[in-house]
Amino acid sequence: MSAATLLLSGGLDSTTLLAHAIREGFDVHAMTFRYGQRHAGEIAAARRVAAQYGVRDHVIVDIDLRTFGGSALTSDAPVPKDRPVAVGAPAEIPVTYVPARNTIFLSIALAWAEVLGARDIFIGVNALDYSGYPDCRPEYIAAFERMANLATRAGVEGTAPVRIRTPLIEMTKAQIIRLGLSLGVDYSITQSCYDPAPDGAACARCDACQLRLRGFADAGASDPVRYVHR
Amino acid sequence: MSAATLLLSGGLDSTTLLAHAIREGFDVHAMTFRYGQRHAGEIAAARRVAAQYGVRDHVIVDIDLRTFGGSALTSDAPVPKDRPVAVGAPAEIPVTYVPARNTIFLSIALAWAEVLGARDIFIGVNALDYSGYPDCRPEYIAAFERMANLATRAGVEGTAPVRIRTPLIEMTKAQIIRLGLSLGVDYSITQSCYDPAPDGAACARCDACQLRLRGFADAGASDPVRYVHR
Repeated sequence: MSAATLLLSGGLDSTTLLAHAIREGFDVHAMTFRYGQRHAGEIAAARRVAAQYGVRDHVIVDIDLRTFGGSALTSDAPVPKDRPVAVGAPAEIPVTYVPARNTIFLSIALAWAEVLGARDIFIGVNALDYSGYPDCRPEYIAAFERMANLATRAGVEGTAPVRIRTPLIEMTKAQIIRLGLSLGVDYSITQSCYDPAPDGAACARCDACQLRLRGFADAGASDPVRYVHR
Repeated sequence: MSAATLLLSGGLDSTTLLAHAIREGFDVHAMTFRYGQRHAGEIAAARRVAAQYGVRDHVIVDIDLRTFGGSALTSDAPVPKDRPVAVGAPAEIPVTYVPARNTIFLSIALAWAEVLGARDIFIGVNALDYSGYPDCRPEYIAAFERMANLATRAGVEGTAPVRIRTPLIEMTKAQIIRLGLSLGVDYSITQSCYDPAPDGAACARCDACQLRLRGFADAGASDPVRYVHR
């Protein structure tokens, strides 16, 4: 089995990604970041998912992005609710954008991959039903991969190049859900909501909940996670 | 004054870089990483340098790269001593290479720059008298800059692009020292040694000490830091 690192948030996309990478035969080393998120539910969901799949290794990396502020996901600013969520790239970058987040996460996953001798790094970005973040676009991923191959031993020693694997990048949310269901993913243990209730119920109104609910509806399936009473 | 972020280790190169950026008129926001270095002297040196220059802001970011191992600088493996240190790129990557370190540091500096609205990010990498690290080469820096402009608001909103500023990249160590002396840098408060003695004296034998001592000799100057008795 070939070793790979994989960014696991415990949400719908990264859980589907994990099921896909395992099905492809990778020996997955999962990585989750505690970066000053508003809630700890994301870490708990990632732990549940990693445990269910019995991944080789699961590390939680602490990095406090609140030091700089700059996002509703890492500050006390309100998470937007009931916004119309477009399919395709929206016209403006939402306040939930965390500056350079995927770049920081991929950089640390790259370091781990280099130590492991892994050439594959999996990230569940999505450019179709995405939330308007610049660091989810294919041209960004291609530029990161190119940079990564100059940054590391591979670039100097001419060994096998690093690959940033984004199997979900061109899929709609409904397609991701169908893929996950076909792989037997148990979505009840995942968490996508930006602003869950104290008891863990998803809000149903943030961008992430809206995209997720519409995805399940389009896939003709029902979302097993618990939502606040609507 | 234009805001800039600057990676400050408290060593000879980044201190000269800071003096240069300030002379160029930048409002410097300095960033130092506590990443599991073998010694805390680097952080103390960075604090002394930031204080002496009265930078706008100086943040110490914790990120534990020891989680993955993989380098003599973040583990208990011995730092090589008395190695012949070549001018120009050596044939192999030394054990003091920290996987993806500059990529991780630049990514976090990029996040801070985006929050500040700064477009300039200063890093004191050096490709000439460098220690054989892949992430000190000009082609790596160019690839990082290109990626950074796709990763952030600048890439979507078409605002002023991010620039990775590496004014020392083509200089010899002696040229860097001459530049610093012309800018009035007080090298006595800097620290370059990978393996200082418990009292803080530099070892004179690691790659960093050897490059530094030869640089001062070539510049016709004397190094004011304290070395262990030789």
